[in-house]
Amino acid sequence: MEFSSKLLERAVNEMSQLPGIGKRTALRLVLHMLRQPKEQTIGLAEALKTMRNDIKFCKSCNNISDVALCEICSNPGRNEAMICVVEDVRDVMAIENTSSYKGLYHVLGGKISPMDGIGPHDLNIESLVNKVKEGKAKELIFALSSTMEGDTTNFYIYKQIQDYDVFTSTIARGISVGDELEYADEITLGRSIVNRIPFESSLKL
Amino acid sequence: MEFSSKLLERAVNEMSQLPGIGKRTALRLVLHMLRQPKEQTIGLAEALKTMRNDIKFCKSCNNISDVALCEICSNPGRNEAMICVVEDVRDVMAIENTSSYKGLYHVLGGKISPMDGIGPHDLNIESLVNKVKEGKAKELIFALSSTMEGDTTNFYIYKQIQDYDVFTSTIARGISVGDELEYADEITLGRSIVNRIPFESSLKL
Repeated sequence: MEFSSKLLERAVNEMSQLPGIGKRTALRLVLHMLRQPKEQTIGLAEALKTMRNDIKFCKSCNNISDVALCEICSNPGRNEAMICVVEDVRDVMAIENTSSYKGLYHVLGGKISPMDGIGPHDLNIESLVNKVKEGKAKELIFALSSTMEGDTTNFYIYKQIQDYDVFTSTIARGISVGDELEYADEITLGRSIVNRIPFESSLKL
Repeated sequence: MEFSSKLLERAVNEMSQLPGIGKRTALRLVLHMLRQPKEQTIGLAEALKTMRNDIKFCKSCNNISDVALCEICSNPGRNEAMICVVEDVRDVMAIENTSSYKGLYHVLGGKISPMDGIGPHDLNIESLVNKVKEGKAKELIFALSSTMEGDTTNFYIYKQIQDYDVFTSTIARGISVGDELEYADEITLGRSIVNRIPFESSLKL
């Protein structure tokens, strides 16, 4: 791509570093910015810069936060003994949206994936294991993606803590609400039969 | 969407102002930035800010440029009497990539589109008409999209300049190189037969 301006070229190159944004999309976005009022682009640039410079990760759960200890960890109404283990911040937001969980979280920052060069030491596993060793956590709920990497990560953490007094659970796998049975994959369907629940308790949800 | 950080929320909101980027994509991009080295996000923010503040539009053709008169307009090897009329900067880049045009350009900045509230006075039409009136341009090549808006814009400009001594042409519409005839739409196919060219001249391309 030949650019008529170095400034344009640099902006396009920087934008196209983002995942899923190629050179053409980057050019489209940058040209859009040039058509909008100047304040809008300056606002975006400032927001990104301030965020990257000032954002903090909660010292306890590693969730993104504006203060040292995040709102969830510092909320006295939360059950401190229950820790939900998730991959990233988006999962915390998704579970918080359901309003059905009142424990704390622990954000790993990814999952073990040798293919992508991510090992256990690249994740926040040690601090989680320490919480268990110190006896702070009584239940760990594994809420990772149901993929090989997610299962590997669950199992790795499980091996580290199995000798301690902690109950471990994993979120239920089954047929999504609203899904038709005939389109479900066989592993999910099989698990949902093996892990069936009393009909009366399903009525309470 | 509930955010655990105001800084994160602001960055996501600003990102999601861009066309084709919703809140979820914006969040994915912003979280990616947080995983990358700090310099990368600062670099992006600086590039966008500098671009928006310092970029210029060529005073003659309205192309994006780092200087007052763009490289194409200031190139003495270019044919000044021939002006290719295009919608935006991307079209200039596309035509320049073909290396088959040695005239100048005129970037309109869009096309007449009453549905989007864009009238002739929102585009750089007046300066183009002035170039014709001053006798600088001997040929105008209309290279706008082959849509109703493009055709309307072509016709609007044509009406303004038809009494002056200028030749107007439009880029050829026809079957794309590599396309199969049976899949071509009938208007394109019809035009390509009406505007057929001598076989010998097709061999020279």
